[in-house]
Amino acid sequence: MTNHTPRVQLLLTGNEIMSGDTVDSNSALIAKRLDELAISVYRKVTVGDDPALLKSELASMAQAADVVIINGGLGPTVDDLTAEILAAVAGVELAEHPEALAHLESWCAGRNLPLNAANRKQALLPAGCHVIDNPIGSAVGFEMTVSDCRIICTPGVPGELRAMLDWIISDLARGLQRPVERDILRLQTFGLGESSAQQLISDQIPDWPQEVELGFRAGAPQMEIKLSIDRNEDQPARAHCLAQLEALFGDHIIGQGDTLLAGRVLSLLRERKATLATAESCTGGLIASMLTQIPGSSDAFHAGFVTYANDIKRDVLGVSQADLDTHGAVSEEVVRAMALGAMDRARANYAVAVSGIAGPGGGSDDKPVGTVWLAWGEREHLRTRCLCWPVERSLFQTMIAAAALDMIRRMLLGIDEEPRYFRQRRAR
Amino acid sequence: MTNHTPRVQLLLTGNEIMSGDTVDSNSALIAKRLDELAISVYRKVTVGDDPALLKSELASMAQAADVVIINGGLGPTVDDLTAEILAAVAGVELAEHPEALAHLESWCAGRNLPLNAANRKQALLPAGCHVIDNPIGSAVGFEMTVSDCRIICTPGVPGELRAMLDWIISDLARGLQRPVERDILRLQTFGLGESSAQQLISDQIPDWPQEVELGFRAGAPQMEIKLSIDRNEDQPARAHCLAQLEALFGDHIIGQGDTLLAGRVLSLLRERKATLATAESCTGGLIASMLTQIPGSSDAFHAGFVTYANDIKRDVLGVSQADLDTHGAVSEEVVRAMALGAMDRARANYAVAVSGIAGPGGGSDDKPVGTVWLAWGEREHLRTRCLCWPVERSLFQTMIAAAALDMIRRMLLGIDEEPRYFRQRRAR
Repeated sequence: MTNHTPRVQLLLTGNEIMSGDTVDSNSALIAKRLDELAISVYRKVTVGDDPALLKSELASMAQAADVVIINGGLGPTVDDLTAEILAAVAGVELAEHPEALAHLESWCAGRNLPLNAANRKQALLPAGCHVIDNPIGSAVGFEMTVSDCRIICTPGVPGELRAMLDWIISDLARGLQRPVERDILRLQTFGLGESSAQQLISDQIPDWPQEVELGFRAGAPQMEIKLSIDRNEDQPARAHCLAQLEALFGDHIIGQGDTLLAGRVLSLLRERKATLATAESCTGGLIASMLTQIPGSSDAFHAGFVTYANDIKRDVLGVSQADLDTHGAVSEEVVRAMALGAMDRARANYAVAVSGIAGPGGGSDDKPVGTVWLAWGEREHLRTRCLCWPVERSLFQTMIAAAALDMIRRMLLGIDEEPRYFRQRRAR
Repeated sequence: MTNHTPRVQLLLTGNEIMSGDTVDSNSALIAKRLDELAISVYRKVTVGDDPALLKSELASMAQAADVVIINGGLGPTVDDLTAEILAAVAGVELAEHPEALAHLESWCAGRNLPLNAANRKQALLPAGCHVIDNPIGSAVGFEMTVSDCRIICTPGVPGELRAMLDWIISDLARGLQRPVERDILRLQTFGLGESSAQQLISDQIPDWPQEVELGFRAGAPQMEIKLSIDRNEDQPARAHCLAQLEALFGDHIIGQGDTLLAGRVLSLLRERKATLATAESCTGGLIASMLTQIPGSSDAFHAGFVTYANDIKRDVLGVSQADLDTHGAVSEEVVRAMALGAMDRARANYAVAVSGIAGPGGGSDDKPVGTVWLAWGEREHLRTRCLCWPVERSLFQTMIAAAALDMIRRMLLGIDEEPRYFRQRRAR
């Protein structure tokens, strides 16, 4: 291999991937590991266990790429075709490979299994190939160079592939005569859409440096912004980009890496030795569930109340029947009383309360589906707001639960600025 | 389109798929839906947002295939290239499509958002294409025929793709001049593993008819079993298979189609005009959240209590301090008192209570991480059980919340047999 960045293609094989019975996560795994070498996968082709099609795909890839990684088809069954296909494309025979046979024998011996014919097939590899150790499974990997293209054959079982990738990545790094090379910074945000974030960045940061690659991954409720740069590129450029993003929408940035909203809220509470209680109607326990998914959440979260029915809001949280009758369950008065009741019963410093109409039923002209009142804060400093977020029920619950946590996060950080999504979704 | 089975290829685009930041589940979804028409995907190519490469792939696919489904690249950002690529391959211009613009306007209006330039780009489509409605998102789909190949462009957001596939599948069925050809029966199960279910079926139903294809989709918490058969095949064979599966592990079958455990529990409660209350410690609101994700859950679910701290179990649910001191929070006495307290305060007919050690911290020799006590039932008929399910925290919470709902389901159905997972995971 030369020391330019190699052009890499992936060839995935397996009827179970084509049929959709298996979702392919292997190519994502391979791509993420290659990213450490600043190598991108250029093209990926997936086909079933069809020998003619596999041969023609591999032959054309070997012409166009520097490296082809084949995944799948190493197993013991008749539809495992990779060794046969590579031998055909390389113009060599299949031969029993002593190293592969020894591996199979020791693998079977370790499990008190006889070495049967099906297993023994896994030692039949293209003549002249190099074996790659499989520290976990029976099928060894193998590789050989055809028409100046290095073809690396890997197993379809994710754990076996993962184990083999360590060797493959370090071997590719040696071939490139350089160490792992790319720095990636991930920012977790809430309340920004992909298109509005992209638009804001285009409008407000026209001098974005080309060497800092910008990516978005929209999820619900969070969106990830990824900045990546080659390690030998201008590092201050990335710091500059980060500073500009922070100036542009810093209050929407929850944290770096894998930070979750609930995790951020819990650590802010922990720093203050404070606790939070939840009172949920339309989110139905989701806020509590997001908090308690974080290990160690019991430090700062002791109690949550799912008060779905009006009499429960009254009897459990002390909401007055008069407020329920006069203003309805989806009202400022009721969420305020829910928050105070939860704080009281949980002896918590902070509370967040939510009451709204998740749909599809239950809306009215005055309060359509998607209307929701939030209350959050401390006893002496309780804030409320009404939003209208008319989306499908489970997305509504996810986004509103996250917005409730985000309100607490902003209050704990002393951010007074109104979030962008409030400006857009304000109902009254 | 002719009425032979069309040769279908998929073209997936997106840097986030190539980089491995997103695992592609969309092509599995497409393949599964095509399976209803007895159509297999022949070949799938995935590339990044590279215009030249996308053009050459699409041009060569259009020569070889009857149908090409493109997924991704419909969004508002500069790296969304699908419309531009299709226009280039078809040799037409991009034009603002009134139907798409109207969709965008109404989508933005419904969300109180301004129609910005980035969004407006999504109405620029190849001249002469036909728009496919997107009932969920801003990006419409579109399709046109090039060189006798029908090219269908679909959004990368999974929920939007799913919504659009209904139209695409019925339209392809019309083009084939035959109805959907494959009868698919999906069974939702809880408490069975894929390999143990497969093994049981192989051992216990040796005469499984070849024409009834069996598939599994393992999820958390449910596993789907799929029986599919060509419509012109022997239908009684499928009924026979179904009967055998029901005899083998019928009590683990929650329902058909998309039935969720929480939905099944709610409809069983509704039939009895009964209500359920929840008292959660280690599942932290997840049971309540699973219930309230189902539209109309307020009929049968009025209140849930997340009692994470001991003093909250005492003060909110009336668990005695003596039980907490003597037996600890993870004990039969405490879950029993939690269930009774929740039933009482919610005036509910049924309750379920959970207290356990989700980890990673908090375990002891006596009660290791993964230990959990469950209580469920009516006031006069309350049952308890201890399990040990030592898996990663969020999977533990998911499986235990589901097991709690499953206990109520079994009780409401009068199933006395102990579920398989209890036999395997019983702690004491």
